[in-house]
Amino acid sequence: MISKPQMQFIRSLAIKKYRTQAGVFVVEGAKAVAELLDTQHQIQAIYALPSWINDHAAKLRKYNDIVVEISHKELEMMSELSTPNQVLAIVQMPKAHINPILLTQKFVFALDQIQDPGNLGTIIRTADWMGMPYVFCSPDCVDVFNPKTVQATMGSVLRVSVIYTPLNELFIQHPQLPVYGALLNGKNLFETDFTTQNGFLLIGNEAHGISPSLHQHITQAITIPKHGQAESLNAALAASIIAAVAVNFKTPQ
Amino acid sequence: MISKPQMQFIRSLAIKKYRTQAGVFVVEGAKAVAELLDTQHQIQAIYALPSWINDHAAKLRKYNDIVVEISHKELEMMSELSTPNQVLAIVQMPKAHINPILLTQKFVFALDQIQDPGNLGTIIRTADWMGMPYVFCSPDCVDVFNPKTVQATMGSVLRVSVIYTPLNELFIQHPQLPVYGALLNGKNLFETDFTTQNGFLLIGNEAHGISPSLHQHITQAITIPKHGQAESLNAALAASIIAAVAVNFKTPQ
Repeated sequence: MISKPQMQFIRSLAIKKYRTQAGVFVVEGAKAVAELLDTQHQIQAIYALPSWINDHAAKLRKYNDIVVEISHKELEMMSELSTPNQVLAIVQMPKAHINPILLTQKFVFALDQIQDPGNLGTIIRTADWMGMPYVFCSPDCVDVFNPKTVQATMGSVLRVSVIYTPLNELFIQHPQLPVYGALLNGKNLFETDFTTQNGFLLIGNEAHGISPSLHQHITQAITIPKHGQAESLNAALAASIIAAVAVNFKTPQ
Repeated sequence: MISKPQMQFIRSLAIKKYRTQAGVFVVEGAKAVAELLDTQHQIQAIYALPSWINDHAAKLRKYNDIVVEISHKELEMMSELSTPNQVLAIVQMPKAHINPILLTQKFVFALDQIQDPGNLGTIIRTADWMGMPYVFCSPDCVDVFNPKTVQATMGSVLRVSVIYTPLNELFIQHPQLPVYGALLNGKNLFETDFTTQNGFLLIGNEAHGISPSLHQHITQAITIPKHGQAESLNAALAASIIAAVAVNFKTPQ
């Protein structure tokens, strides 16, 4: 049983302004919250059906004082999912620490004005699959703690650090790292040399591509060859294809 | 100005049952409908704002008797888009003709129980980009003429033929074509031989993967190498990565 103000607070977290004020976001669903328990994330509260609490009793022992048992009806009232799934947790927004050595050893995404919450979420999921530790976002990208984005990451938002920062400053701070920019007239992705196995994979806005002011920082423009007639590829798909090819590149013998 | 029954009919087309009964589907948006005018598709009606009709007067000449001028308010009432965009067309569902020679010269997708309308739409868009002429869907895939799917294809549904058919029968009918199945324990995608440049790229359901009954037809199981911790990749992303690598494969010298 939870109070009306508590319920209102949780529902307010669907809106960025209130998330930012409170410094927390919502993780939903049986699997994502179970994974959350195994991480270092600071959990403020867990709202769960009695059956879920029972099933996770051992892991929940250290969280005893923040677990709140709720009814299915209460869960439906607080959930942003079309099909609420047993449990919902309030989590402190993590502070991203960038390891400068790791940054020279791995590819990372740099996302310019990605607007669609689902696109951002699937790109973070891809980064997690490909072993990319960081996703850098221009300040005008959609918010990573948007419920739709969190959902689309399928838990990967708990493992990949997402950092909002002006991309031009980021590139200037790391002049030794290559910047691969996804453009329509770049070098064939499949003929591009990714031997160094590091640098920024720069992906532009869904409709307008990479901002003109960032073009000067691109050290290698790359293109996914077009064999048919579609005018463009979805931004998340393009990001994933580029990351897969870059990460799996083998230096020719 | 349109009648109430007309409006009800158009709105009913958001539901598969009524689309199937009428044998038509809806294409929305200024760009998609403009592209539609250049295709061989049979258009039953075009509902558009006066400004759009003016802008496309030349191309609309042969469609004069099926163009209906509507108000912005009427467009909002009939549209399935969150931001209605000037025009909406009612189009006859195309009959797919499979060219057996083309089928031996190109990769095609075979989709098993894809459930998400957005995933199906982006896969069709990818097929169009990659020059893949056909997308085969198991009968229990989501409907291609779902408004969300049509929207996600960004016009590619007008160029790629989508065919619903039992996949096991399809594979049996084409024993000479390889079947590349996306599994978690297959051969490294980046070490797979795609020299023949044809065959089926078989992608499974978002949650359950490829149906066990189809495994016997797979001639080469393939996997996108995992470098991080995500449990899985989004089905549309996996499909796109596999298609990009297959289509762009160069036989080693």
